[in-house]
Amino acid sequence: MRLDDLALGLGLELLGDGALEVRRVVGIEKAGPGDLSFVGHPRYAGHAATTRATALIVPPGVETPAARLVCANPYLAYARALALLHPQPLPPPGVHPSAQVDPTAELGPGVHVGPLAVVGAGARVGARSVLHAQVVLYPGAAVGADCRLHAAVQVREGCRLGDRVVVQNGAVIGADGFGFARDEQGRYHKIPQVGVVVIEDDVEIGALTAVDRSATAETRIGRGTKLDNLVQIGHSVQVGQDTVMAAQVGVAGSARIGSGVMLGGQVGIAGHISVGDGVVAVGQTGITGSIEAGRQIAGTPAMDVRSWRRNAALAPRLPELLRRVRELERRLAALEGKG
Amino acid sequence: MRLDDLALGLGLELLGDGALEVRRVVGIEKAGPGDLSFVGHPRYAGHAATTRATALIVPPGVETPAARLVCANPYLAYARALALLHPQPLPPPGVHPSAQVDPTAELGPGVHVGPLAVVGAGARVGARSVLHAQVVLYPGAAVGADCRLHAAVQVREGCRLGDRVVVQNGAVIGADGFGFARDEQGRYHKIPQVGVVVIEDDVEIGALTAVDRSATAETRIGRGTKLDNLVQIGHSVQVGQDTVMAAQVGVAGSARIGSGVMLGGQVGIAGHISVGDGVVAVGQTGITGSIEAGRQIAGTPAMDVRSWRRNAALAPRLPELLRRVRELERRLAALEGKG
Amino acid sequence: MRLDDLALGLGLELLGDGALEVRRVVGIEKAGPGDLSFVGHPRYAGHAATTRATALIVPPGVETPAARLVCANPYLAYARALALLHPQPLPPPGVHPSAQVDPTAELGPGVHVGPLAVVGAGARVGARSVLHAQVVLYPGAAVGADCRLHAAVQVREGCRLGDRVVVQNGAVIGADGFGFARDEQGRYHKIPQVGVVVIEDDVEIGALTAVDRSATAETRIGRGTKLDNLVQIGHSVQVGQDTVMAAQVGVAGSARIGSGVMLGGQVGIAGHISVGDGVVAVGQTGITGSIEAGRQIAGTPAMDVRSWRRNAALAPRLPELLRRVRELERRLAALEGKG
Repeated sequence: MRLDDLALGLGLELLGDGALEVRRVVGIEKAGPGDLSFVGHPRYAGHAATTRATALIVPPGVETPAARLVCANPYLAYARALALLHPQPLPPPGVHPSAQVDPTAELGPGVHVGPLAVVGAGARVGARSVLHAQVVLYPGAAVGADCRLHAAVQVREGCRLGDRVVVQNGAVIGADGFGFARDEQGRYHKIPQVGVVVIEDDVEIGALTAVDRSATAETRIGRGTKLDNLVQIGHSVQVGQDTVMAAQVGVAGSARIGSGVMLGGQVGIAGHISVGDGVVAVGQTGITGSIEAGRQIAGTPAMDVRSWRRNAALAPRLPELLRRVRELERRLAALEGKG
Repeated sequence: MRLDDLALGLGLELLGDGALEVRRVVGIEKAGPGDLSFVGHPRYAGHAATTRATALIVPPGVETPAARLVCANPYLAYARALALLHPQPLPPPGVHPSAQVDPTAELGPGVHVGPLAVVGAGARVGARSVLHAQVVLYPGAAVGADCRLHAAVQVREGCRLGDRVVVQNGAVIGADGFGFARDEQGRYHKIPQVGVVVIEDDVEIGALTAVDRSATAETRIGRGTKLDNLVQIGHSVQVGQDTVMAAQVGVAGSARIGSGVMLGGQVGIAGHISVGDGVVAVGQTGITGSIEAGRQIAGTPAMDVRSWRRNAALAPRLPELLRRVRELERRLAALEGKG
Repeated sequence: MRLDDLALGLGLELLGDGALEVRRVVGIEKAGPGDLSFVGHPRYAGHAATTRATALIVPPGVETPAARLVCANPYLAYARALALLHPQPLPPPGVHPSAQVDPTAELGPGVHVGPLAVVGAGARVGARSVLHAQVVLYPGAAVGADCRLHAAVQVREGCRLGDRVVVQNGAVIGADGFGFARDEQGRYHKIPQVGVVVIEDDVEIGALTAVDRSATAETRIGRGTKLDNLVQIGHSVQVGQDTVMAAQVGVAGSARIGSGVMLGGQVGIAGHISVGDGVVAVGQTGITGSIEAGRQIAGTPAMDVRSWRRNAALAPRLPELLRRVRELERRLAALEGKG
């Protein structure tokens, strides 16, 4: 693609020769002639001066021998450039002959149903959505328009996905929540899970992630939220908008997670608590009580990230502290003996 | 359903008008006319006085304007009421024409085999069990009576499930255990995993949970035990009866977990150790050594939950402690100088 | 199998009657007549003296009434004996009629494609590889020779597996990495993930493990590395050779893990850091910064395993330490008052 066409497509100012061609997007350390790259983080600014890339997306003021596409948010422009230079063809519309689509299911215009997929009775799929091979929609499941469900994704009975939802391979939407009542003999009896899951527009769900249905109401993932792989969302959890959860996060039943929250990998959140808007939790944080909006937390049980760092730095000094106290006791006893 | 019919079905005393109708079960904060709800936990007792629900399941002595179904274990009655008011229809008996059932497999009366399921050579399925779409039974796998295996569940060769076992979507029963022998060059050689998994009666296994087969013997999950989603059970692990494990728990190979144990989310258990009956572990606990029956534990490495809470409370006081020791040293030196 | 044949097959010296027969391999505590067992760990050496097994694989110098197969690395010999005594038949070559194989896919000689598997356009499968039921190869995926992909494994577009790779059920190779660019309104925009995953020879991948594709380059798992179940490997991660990761480990994007590394269960590794060759991390370790080769680490944030053990032992003494400091302050004040 010519650089002037790319600049036009991205709506960015080009400083350099618009007739140059770039063919792919490559990380700045490996980029060479014919490549587009970007400087998104200050730590890579040094690479800009020596890069062999044909063009760079950079914030204002970065020096480079490459042609420059100048942008306040280079990372976002990089995302758009990738889509322009590496368009990912979607499977063509149509239902593969090996797919099992119930006659009462409704498929919108332009829908693709891949090989050996299953669409149950009364299920609905919106316009242009793609169901890859072996996707299973249980009866009454509903998928919006322009969605993409990768191979082996399961959507259970009555669960609903909005528009432009992306679900990676093997994720399970709407399995039964973990609800059991204990009797006098200590045996557990299943609590029927008759609620649903609602996934709002523009959500992405990672591979092998499980979002459980509610016992009697809704589990809800808010608009624009992104869940990584192997995440667990318990029954009746409510997640706000534009929240991100890294891989292997676990959220127990009935917790409420705000909007704009960022959870690092392997964070655990107890049931029935609230995590306010904009909270940031370091990986492996164990959140056992409600957290006010805007806090940055770490550790188990969770505390302010600065306290956690300070405690972590001091913990190795415990043996020294013990020695110093013992020495103080010895000297004080000597002094008391003199007195 | 009329309240007098419901009371009869639940075997409970009704205080109120038996001719009233309830149509669904709803959480007490959202319940209105036509709804049944319950007070299972003291913290919700206040809601009973002001609820607009038509009827409540309550422990003795709770005041409410609603009709009352009185019960010592309201949570258990709630589970049963859900089953009565929201019956979940099972798929009808029969084998879907797209399913691949080996001619040597044995299916009991009333079995349902869903679209695109696979039942291997010599596999057996007991009476009235339901295999949803795309379930895979490897050769020689055995499923008892009245089981329900959700879509994409896999049961590997020779593994056996008891009666009334429920397995949520995508769970894997009997994948190879993680066993490798290291040679002199540091390379790993696979140890064939020729044992099996045995799942006893009334077990429930969560979505995307993995229970590995034993190298030469059995991995066993005891009667009535419930595993949540994304749980890992290593090879040759033995789990007792009526134990519950929340999501993302990991149990390493050859560990023995007792009966009536409760493990919070993301708990990790080392291999070759024992966890006694009735142990309760807080989420994220790291159990690196054997634990006696009845203990309540937390932290990594695991300690009594009270010690863990106390340590967590004291950790933020470390900087203060260091300051006080420094001050003591200063004052003592001054005193020594005087002496 | 006669013991002299077994000794020949294993290339080991036999001390005992070569005409004796063994039929199976059993753990030493349960082994009886007709069984072969082994002493791999000193803690089981006591069992050798009293075992009822017909034969034992032992290191030199172990006393036992059983016939002995003597070997410096009994665990490795045990692995080989299992393969000899319990051969696991592979499914026969051929494509099941219900499989969906694109006409442009290339299948090597002796390949098995199981029921309802899907092989996309341009995908390649090397000689003698086995794809079990419902495996999905996306277009352009490549699987080497002598591989075994268990049921429901997914390999996404363009990803490549070497020779002798084993993938357990439900694992996902090449789902989109977790990459999103945030705009000025706090909304996230997907960064197309146009790179691939490369799995080198002799790797084993556990059930329900996810290895994400790179945004623009390669995620790579080195020769001989073994990943357990439910592991997460983020985009662009590089893993060396002969590294082992236990279940539920999570490695964030662009991390570099060396060769001969051993990670315990539930270890978490932050993005963009390096873990040197031969590092050993205890289960649940949280690695937030780069780690030099050869270190043994534990805790979050990670520290030397000895420091971690010492801190863990001292933490319960914090209340006592606080008391002793308070007492010192009291006595010192008394002394100062006197002076």
